[in-house]
Amino acid sequence: MRERLEKQMEFLREIDKLKMIGRQTYLSDGKRKENDAEHSWHLAMCAIVLQEYMPEPVDTARTVALVLAHDLVEIYAGDAYAYDQAAQEAQHQKEVEAAEKLFGMLPEEQGAYFQELWEEFEQCGTPEARFARVLDNCQPLLLNDASGGKNWREHGIRKAQVLKRNERVRKWAPELWEYLERIILKHVELGNLGD
Amino acid sequence: MRERLEKQMEFLREIDKLKMIGRQTYLSDGKRKENDAEHSWHLAMCAIVLQEYMPEPVDTARTVALVLAHDLVEIYAGDAYAYDQAAQEAQHQKEVEAAEKLFGMLPEEQGAYFQELWEEFEQCGTPEARFARVLDNCQPLLLNDASGGKNWREHGIRKAQVLKRNERVRKWAPELWEYLERIILKHVELGNLGD
Repeated sequence: MRERLEKQMEFLREIDKLKMIGRQTYLSDGKRKENDAEHSWHLAMCAIVLQEYMPEPVDTARTVALVLAHDLVEIYAGDAYAYDQAAQEAQHQKEVEAAEKLFGMLPEEQGAYFQELWEEFEQCGTPEARFARVLDNCQPLLLNDASGGKNWREHGIRKAQVLKRNERVRKWAPELWEYLERIILKHVELGNLGD
Repeated sequence: MRERLEKQMEFLREIDKLKMIGRQTYLSDGKRKENDAEHSWHLAMCAIVLQEYMPEPVDTARTVALVLAHDLVEIYAGDAYAYDQAAQEAQHQKEVEAAEKLFGMLPEEQGAYFQELWEEFEQCGTPEARFARVLDNCQPLLLNDASGGKNWREHGIRKAQVLKRNERVRKWAPELWEYLERIILKHVELGNLGD
């Protein structure tokens, strides 16, 4: 019993490191970039507020669990920038090993639960995972918009890249896509995104 | 329809500010203090992992929603340090006004949902709210332990204050309390907490 609780507390202390994993997206005020823990919290809030825009029925509580856990593997594997193709390709194997190490800290059935959450998110085979992916695409766009496209300008990102990156939103949540597309076109016009 | 989505997106952009509300607790590596968004994410993870330690049956998904939303009012009301009695007493009225302003941004039924979550957390009248409060007490203790009691030392905190602050954990989750009490006593012995 005490050993079980020790393992759980050790895991909860270890995942504090998610707060130290940086992402490329600036906060809405453009002053600093967000980290994975903040991003995960924000996605969970998006899941609660935007659930009505998924055309297929979705279990929101499951989606919340998926987004809260989806980046945990980056504690060991790091974050690969969305528009860095080479980094994206090397990422998967690193994440598989990270999942084994991190979720292996927990009592067996809890480790299996987190492993399932992570695989479900990766595979997009359920409505909840598709919703989680949609949000994972929407939220950085919202922040890029709020910060005046700062990150796009810094990396010289082009409209076609953003459209490709967000294909899933168009397919899985067309009403949200319509909203995001207006944002993208606005930033092309402003010169923050290359045409 | 478009107006409804605009309101929701405006709310989701506004709550990005939770990432800018600082807390007193240091991250586990002691290098910087955490913010409210990171704290809320961490509590949600604690809810998923530690649910078995609540003696009363608990709906974990509801607890997760409670902890994700419990600090939102601090976007306008700020964070009152747990061991600053005067700040704590002035805090409630500020938070009532903040809730009205922030949740009023949302479509009515969604605003009411967040208002309910916040009031439920404040009042501790449900098992889920009691669990959320227990976690809100446990998590800073875990981090204070990991950072070698840095925050306690800086503020000259005494054992009696920590015991009083965590009374609810003893009452509502005795097994977790036993674990935390060992941590507290260890830090008294190390001189990080005054006796």
